[in-house]
Amino acid sequence: MSTMQQIVDFILELDKLKGVTRKTRPLGLDRYENSAEHSWQIAMLASSLTHFAETAIDINRVIGMLLVHDIGEIDTGDTIFYVEEGLGERKAAEFAAVTRIFGMLPEPQRAKFMALWQEFENAETPESRFAHAADRAMPVLLNLANEGQSWRENGISHERVVRRVAPPIKAGCPALWDYLEARLEDVRRKGWFGAD
Amino acid sequence: MSTMQQIVDFILELDKLKGVTRKTRPLGLDRYENSAEHSWQIAMLASSLTHFAETAIDINRVIGMLLVHDIGEIDTGDTIFYVEEGLGERKAAEFAAVTRIFGMLPEPQRAKFMALWQEFENAETPESRFAHAADRAMPVLLNLANEGQSWRENGISHERVVRRVAPPIKAGCPALWDYLEARLEDVRRKGWFGAD
Repeated sequence: MSTMQQIVDFILELDKLKGVTRKTRPLGLDRYENSAEHSWQIAMLASSLTHFAETAIDINRVIGMLLVHDIGEIDTGDTIFYVEEGLGERKAAEFAAVTRIFGMLPEPQRAKFMALWQEFENAETPESRFAHAADRAMPVLLNLANEGQSWRENGISHERVVRRVAPPIKAGCPALWDYLEARLEDVRRKGWFGAD
Repeated sequence: MSTMQQIVDFILELDKLKGVTRKTRPLGLDRYENSAEHSWQIAMLASSLTHFAETAIDINRVIGMLLVHDIGEIDTGDTIFYVEEGLGERKAAEFAAVTRIFGMLPEPQRAKFMALWQEFENAETPESRFAHAADRAMPVLLNLANEGQSWRENGISHERVVRRVAPPIKAGCPALWDYLEARLEDVRRKGWFGAD
């Protein structure tokens, strides 16, 4: 098979990410958000937040990570971030998925995307931590604009939101957490959260 | 208003791109594709095709252009590429739209996104031509995998597809056009096109 055909087959395989639904609804739409459009939006969020990074970061690597980080969901589906059980199994399944999907590509593309995916997963570099902050903040921002739609539908409490999203957002972009912490406290009294 | 709030308002405005529908359906789904998920997919296509560029290009700028190039459609909606009338008016409307939307941001983000959008529009640099090739090729690839769904639904002939997409794809990524030209000729006999 030609290198071009391998790339075409890979891109058509990626089309399936448009059918992987998340728990958040786009503002003003009845349907659930999918992981492809989410990946675009967090790349734009990270790019917009660049100068809030605490250390000098390569924003292009952040964007690269955000564009590929959910591709494993083509095989595994999306799991709401607040589920804390079975994380090890989910991570193994996502690794198997991206090994299969990036494996459709020739080199060096396969290695490039795999390295971006792995850097995001490891969350050890300033770039990957910044990427995680954008990824974790986005559904919070949508919920803050949407009367807590996915928190209420899934019974997620204020305490649980804070416990789960504060550490990665603080670690990657402290100024973003300062903003969100105050906003979350504001809406706590409005009944926009579920009970655990 | 704080800089952070400006960025948040901008990102929530971008959410509307998830509701701008195109004429192509994602493979296996009943609904139409939206411009947000399309923007993600063509960023992945360009990234995968990097080594097919004819000259050395900065792929990060290509990706940046592809992530922002459709944002004006939040105000104008999507127009199928095969419509040749009214191009000047549509371009003016898109410019007004991105001026409004990027104008929600502080500097330097506003200028950064505006420059990427303008570089794409001008299509004068190797990076912007490569970006156009990815943007034009993607619906062709989906149609080739989808029995010409959007060509048949919109009465687009083989001749019209070739006349409209060959120049930008050849200009940006000749190897991609060589691949597509042969595939388009293959499916010509299958009745996957409309009549003009």
